Amino acid sequence: MALIVAKFGGTSVASPERIKNVAKRLVGMRQRGDEVVAVVSAMGKTTDELMGLASAVTAAPPARELDRLLSTGEQVSMTLLAMAIEALGYKSISFTGRQAGIETNGTHNKARIVKVHNERILDALDDGAIPVVAGFQGIDANGDITTLGRGGSDTTAVAIAWGINADVCEIYSDVDGVYTTDPRIAPRAKKLDSICYDDMLELSSAGSGVLQSRAVEFARKWKVVIHSRSAFSEAEGTYVKEEYVMEEAVITGIASDTSEVKVTIRQVPDAPSVAARVFGALAAANVNLDMIIQNVSEAGYTDISFTTPGADLPRAVETMERIVPEIGAREYIVDEDIAKVSLVGTGMKSSPGVASRTFQTLGDNNINIMAISTSPIRLSMIVDAAQATQAVQCLHTAFGLDSDDVFVETQLSAEEIAAKMKKGR
Amino acid sequence: MALIVAKFGGTSVASPERIKNVAKRLVGMRQRGDEVVAVVSAMGKTTDELMGLASAVTAAPPARELDRLLSTGEQVSMTLLAMAIEALGYKSISFTGRQAGIETNGTHNKARIVKVHNERILDALDDGAIPVVAGFQGIDANGDITTLGRGGSDTTAVAIAWGINADVCEIYSDVDGVYTTDPRIAPRAKKLDSICYDDMLELSSAGSGVLQSRAVEFARKWKVVIHSRSAFSEAEGTYVKEEYVMEEAVITGIASDTSEVKVTIRQVPDAPSVAARVFGALAAANVNLDMIIQNVSEAGYTDISFTTPGADLPRAVETMERIVPEIGAREYIVDEDIAKVSLVGTGMKSSPGVASRTFQTLGDNNINIMAISTSPIRLSMIVDAAQATQAVQCLHTAFGLDSDDVFVETQLSAEEIAAKMKKGR
Repeated sequence: MALIVAKFGGTSVASPERIKNVAKRLVGMRQRGDEVVAVVSAMGKTTDELMGLASAVTAAPPARELDRLLSTGEQVSMTLLAMAIEALGYKSISFTGRQAGIETNGTHNKARIVKVHNERILDALDDGAIPVVAGFQGIDANGDITTLGRGGSDTTAVAIAWGINADVCEIYSDVDGVYTTDPRIAPRAKKLDSICYDDMLELSSAGSGVLQSRAVEFARKWKVVIHSRSAFSEAEGTYVKEEYVMEEAVITGIASDTSEVKVTIRQVPDAPSVAARVFGALAAANVNLDMIIQNVSEAGYTDISFTTPGADLPRAVETMERIVPEIGAREYIVDEDIAKVSLVGTGMKSSPGVASRTFQTLGDNNINIMAISTSPIRLSMIVDAAQATQAVQCLHTAFGLDSDDVFVETQLSAEEIAAKMKKGR
Repeated sequence: MALIVAKFGGTSVASPERIKNVAKRLVGMRQRGDEVVAVVSAMGKTTDELMGLASAVTAAPPARELDRLLSTGEQVSMTLLAMAIEALGYKSISFTGRQAGIETNGTHNKARIVKVHNERILDALDDGAIPVVAGFQGIDANGDITTLGRGGSDTTAVAIAWGINADVCEIYSDVDGVYTTDPRIAPRAKKLDSICYDDMLELSSAGSGVLQSRAVEFARKWKVVIHSRSAFSEAEGTYVKEEYVMEEAVITGIASDTSEVKVTIRQVPDAPSVAARVFGALAAANVNLDMIIQNVSEAGYTDISFTTPGADLPRAVETMERIVPEIGAREYIVDEDIAKVSLVGTGMKSSPGVASRTFQTLGDNNINIMAISTSPIRLSMIVDAAQATQAVQCLHTAFGLDSDDVFVETQLSAEEIAAKMKKGR
């Protein structure tokens, strides 16, 4: 008998019919003798719709009220799921974040969990019920509702799993696990049986959308085993856990991400304080920076480029409009048609040949690298968005990741993938 | 300076645009020097949509979960209204039923208010804020969310007005007050400047949709002055309060209601226990009865008719299917095409001629009365639905209620009105 936390995302609870399927799945776990706590996101696009209502009312919704508004989405899905479970003859109780004991700091809209009180959930389990917990939300020390920010429901699930000492935190979605790369891009991508926290964290941060990096971070810190699996099949997915294997693959997976944009400032006077002024102004405007590239100075001038999430572009442009004349640079250019391709693997640390094989492979395929950034277990490159698919495919083959099986879904063209990914921004 | 509770129904907050208008209205009150607490219903048809989701998941939603689900509707509108007020530069705080201190009994889906804790709302007012309270919901002694049932938001508003000792409870809707009858039916209907609690209660119970009878009952008991007025104009509406006038009009208003249906059981054996069995079975099936008509017995058989709200018809039919063979009656007939026309007025008590003038007037107009019921201040009759409009019009004239002004909206035909009213069922 295992104690399982099972998290279902918005797609899995998008309609009453799907909610009934989730209820059946939970009841099935109980029938197999497991104990289970469900964590749910809001139905389908509810959170976006609520955000839309708020924006229609005011350009600057007060954070406290916005959190109260957004938290209603999960309250709807949690009560419907509890009803569906009861309709199958099993006892169920729904819990808001507050009732589930998710205590956060007071940073509205992206609160951090500071404590998990497990009493009420454990009581409900003792009572024979299937507790259903609203993801994404908690309560701060003042008793005000907070939300955890995008992807917060995964984090709620991991936190609850830790709080009740569950055997595993199952995260159900519309994909059946973690792949060596996106199978829509590389049809020979392989599903991994397991992956270590470090690799998963790098893959998530590098754009693999299967698990939220914040949830992986929490799981890594508190040693919670995650099982990423499909809501629509019974097949085993991918376990995310600490791994000790004798011989590791050099590269675990390849992620690609088209949600970043590149900004280049042309002809910046090459004085020591200039870069500091540029990046200081960007930091003050809350613009997240990923990569920074500074060209070799020529005749006292240089070009500075940086990449930033597409969501931060408006703030970045605002900052540029102000800072570019101030520092006496010539102009700035925004390039949205870029992609970041990242190789991830803990085995990389002890394999010095990864970078050279990567550059060789991309060179052979006439793919130009615009920027590079590295960590001990990750190598990321910015390439032209139109070449991203080809880059992923040739690297996937070069590092021996190709499966014998070909992914069944029709392979998309580079343009279709780029379009698909841009939409997610 | 007055202390005002202002309640806005679902139509008044149906869109972000309308919510912004409500915010402007509230801010306007503050600018005139009044203090104000807002009470809101869920946006538009939200409550119906949430009910629909619950029914799609299960035929029998657990009452506790259903209340948690339904209560989210007002949580959305209250936060949006608080945001809209803040956008106008005024401080606002939203309160759920729990936070507003609405304590109820544990009867989920139609809880009764048992206590109003006013501290937090008064604190917010002291703090210079415009408190926005979610209508329709409260919390029971176990800390579970309850809802007050249909029309509960009016009751919340009256309860809050009583709890904070407000000068008036303004109830805003899409009509500009209480009329002597529905102006869509009788174009010469007059808006009343004021009406006493007893008359308003009878009018509400008899089908006048302006105010919920439960809210009027609460207001009468605790002497809360209600001001029923339009959300779309600044004109004064109708005050509902205790009235002491030297000479009252005999009839205050006429209501009509097509939401009831008539069931007739044919050829019932005329034994003493039979009626008791019929009405006992209906009571056990939770069928509300309004009027009961038993014809004179003939050759040992009689016909029994009763009227019941359309919503109770399925349960009534189920009971009939079982009881009609049991008691040895011949058959039962359902007539949905009936209307109840009610004359209301405290002046009626001291005017014995009301009944005779009524029957004379209807007789002159060839309108057949199928059943009659009375209270000291009300006379109700069941007539054919197709004759309801004519009945209201001729009685309105006969009792001197006609205004010199003609209501501007195009007069509807009897069929159109019947169709319009049936939809509301």
